[in-house]
Amino acid sequence: MAYRVNIYTGFMPRWRTDAKERLEQAAVELFLEQGFAETSVPQIAAHAGLTTRTFFRHFADKREVLFGVDADVPALTGRVMAQVPTTTTPLALIVSTLVPFAEAAFGQRREVLRMRHQIINTDQGLRERELRKMATLREAIVTGFLERGTDPLVARLAADLAMSVLRSALERWLMLDNDQVLSECVAEAIQALGVLVGQDLVTS
Amino acid sequence: MAYRVNIYTGFMPRWRTDAKERLEQAAVELFLEQGFAETSVPQIAAHAGLTTRTFFRHFADKREVLFGVDADVPALTGRVMAQVPTTTTPLALIVSTLVPFAEAAFGQRREVLRMRHQIINTDQGLRERELRKMATLREAIVTGFLERGTDPLVARLAADLAMSVLRSALERWLMLDNDQVLSECVAEAIQALGVLVGQDLVTS
Repeated sequence: MAYRVNIYTGFMPRWRTDAKERLEQAAVELFLEQGFAETSVPQIAAHAGLTTRTFFRHFADKREVLFGVDADVPALTGRVMAQVPTTTTPLALIVSTLVPFAEAAFGQRREVLRMRHQIINTDQGLRERELRKMATLREAIVTGFLERGTDPLVARLAADLAMSVLRSALERWLMLDNDQVLSECVAEAIQALGVLVGQDLVTS
Repeated sequence: MAYRVNIYTGFMPRWRTDAKERLEQAAVELFLEQGFAETSVPQIAAHAGLTTRTFFRHFADKREVLFGVDADVPALTGRVMAQVPTTTTPLALIVSTLVPFAEAAFGQRREVLRMRHQIINTDQGLRERELRKMATLREAIVTGFLERGTDPLVARLAADLAMSVLRSALERWLMLDNDQVLSECVAEAIQALGVLVGQDLVTS
């Protein structure tokens, strides 16, 4: 469990464009203020200080603003996993990559993610879309393990475990009022995983 | 990991009534043959050789036939978990109870579960209802661990892990054409879990 990988190099500098994140921020603000149905694409673009044309360069419709920002996360997952030596066990891979991965993918967007969470909970279609997004990420992790030669059944359990740790950490982080950073919440969840499996798991 | 518990006593004799299962069988057959929307409660009751009145004694509507048969599973989960000594670790509890639990809850219903799975996939509302059902079972497992004094974060990870092993085993079992029994699929999934956590996990 001592292996450590600097995977920051895998996704730094940040892979999302500023425009995408500005549109996401503007959209969740308007969705919360006016309601999802009552908000139009031109309103979102204007609120972000961008044109409607720029909006459509990044997103197919207003629903996709809630999901499109993370569209690259599954591909990022694959790249990160491919960088870890194949001699590293699935559990050690999860332990060594999850903190920097979570931080890079979600760590800077706490307020937006909180608002997004509220909006998604108001609509059945959005909830189902969110679950599909999570399923896609899980599939990317399964594929990442299979490409490393992991047994299929072990790969699925490992992907579920990674998702479970990530989800627990995100939930806790979004619930907390203090200024705890996401990486601390992920590290805590990994410690809890260590308790569960009876091992001392050290995050990088 | 050597602790073994005979939890069959916790739910044998079977806790579901025959009428409930007969109605479920009749409903999934008709839903598949005619479509969910085109099937009425009187048709289901007649196909099961029972009265409409008996139907409504067990289920609120035709949608609930797909979900109501397992309505007692969360409560069963709590009873099973309460029987295991509190000195048993969460991981050892999962290993020792999951095989008999899965067998008692699902092991005798392979064909019905296959048909049910097909029907649920045709309808967004049914899919969302199924996810809620799974979430309820997960919550029951979390509560079961909390009542044993397990740390909340460890409890959530343990519940996710149990759900992951169960789901993997069920998926594989429903996919297989041969006559492998569910308990073998669960035992295989637990072995894979052992590979993942680097321990030899022996099921009871």
